[in-house]
Amino acid sequence: MSVAPGLYDVIERRRDVRAEFTGAEVPDEVLARVLGAAHAAPSVGHSQPWDFVLVQDRRTRARFHEHVTAERATYAASLPPDRAATFDRIRVEGVLDATLGIVVTHDPDRGGPQVLGRHAIDDAGLYSTCLAIQNLWLAATAEDLGVGWVSFYREPFLRELLAVPERVRPIAWLCVGPVSHHHDVPDLERHGWRQRRPLADAVHHEAYGRRR
Amino acid sequence: MSVAPGLYDVIERRRDVRAEFTGAEVPDEVLARVLGAAHAAPSVGHSQPWDFVLVQDRRTRARFHEHVTAERATYAASLPPDRAATFDRIRVEGVLDATLGIVVTHDPDRGGPQVLGRHAIDDAGLYSTCLAIQNLWLAATAEDLGVGWVSFYREPFLRELLAVPERVRPIAWLCVGPVSHHHDVPDLERHGWRQRRPLADAVHHEAYGRRR
Repeated sequence: MSVAPGLYDVIERRRDVRAEFTGAEVPDEVLARVLGAAHAAPSVGHSQPWDFVLVQDRRTRARFHEHVTAERATYAASLPPDRAATFDRIRVEGVLDATLGIVVTHDPDRGGPQVLGRHAIDDAGLYSTCLAIQNLWLAATAEDLGVGWVSFYREPFLRELLAVPERVRPIAWLCVGPVSHHHDVPDLERHGWRQRRPLADAVHHEAYGRRR
Repeated sequence: MSVAPGLYDVIERRRDVRAEFTGAEVPDEVLARVLGAAHAAPSVGHSQPWDFVLVQDRRTRARFHEHVTAERATYAASLPPDRAATFDRIRVEGVLDATLGIVVTHDPDRGGPQVLGRHAIDDAGLYSTCLAIQNLWLAATAEDLGVGWVSFYREPFLRELLAVPERVRPIAWLCVGPVSHHHDVPDLERHGWRQRRPLADAVHHEAYGRRR
């Protein structure tokens, strides 16, 4: 996309995509822009603790898909009947349909033992990796690509699948690729799983729970 | 700002601001757009686990500033002499200079006991809150506001200061407000603390550590 779309427009259009991937190719220069946006995220102590593993291999994806399918069944079995019926209609991943998977990992040792700003809050490094994911997601949306964050997996499985070192955590499997369209309304709203919370409920003044 | 700036431009201009806050007013409608952008972030199971506490009270900010100053000293004392000298030149917060603080909190109980997509990865809720922070940061940048994430604090202190309930976690104190200018280069690079990692080092193919 050559005309730069406005930030608010991108934020509004961004969806968590499951079913709309076409599988079409993503040009290298587009992928480079999307990864560059992720890599430009802020990070505690400028530690840049993220990495991106690009997965296209069909066998790797088939193994992951099988694992995710089993985790979906485990979750479904935990639900009361009415929620299980709603959940039954909801797709949770597009691992095989998307053009590629981008697995974002977090290295807690990046930046050495004295990361500036992490002495009091160890999770601050993890937060940085998430900021990179949101930059990636928005950039992909601006490029008319879909992104779907798959979270139905166990970290140890994914670590072994991609030979991720012991202390490095896989944070997200993102399905990425061109899509037929972006829905206006998030899947989980459309399917009656959960509705949007009014912004006013999320805003507090001077102290938690205090409303203006 | 009425002309919508392009996403990549905003991502590129975004800085972690410490010293450049002017303290000028932020119009209500601008703040509403910035918070609306944060609130439009994706979240696991559509749980929207974030909240935003807007802090302008000078006494609250003075108490937080005092705590941050003490934590800065604790960190400085942990450094070897050469790093301590570099750190001495670096500002870590603009708590009193910024127009307001936005404290972003995370409620792990939002969405009930069966959040879709969190049964296997409990931290997935926390990740969602971080995605909201990055949306906020980019929207503020698009509005020509500065944002500075303060992480020199202990969570229990901030929880008590803002009456945050026991299980809710304060994730970030963001200093927000108009700035005199945005630096081209991140503070920590300008001051020789840490340099940018090449993007190529962060990209792996098919498995962690495998280069194309």
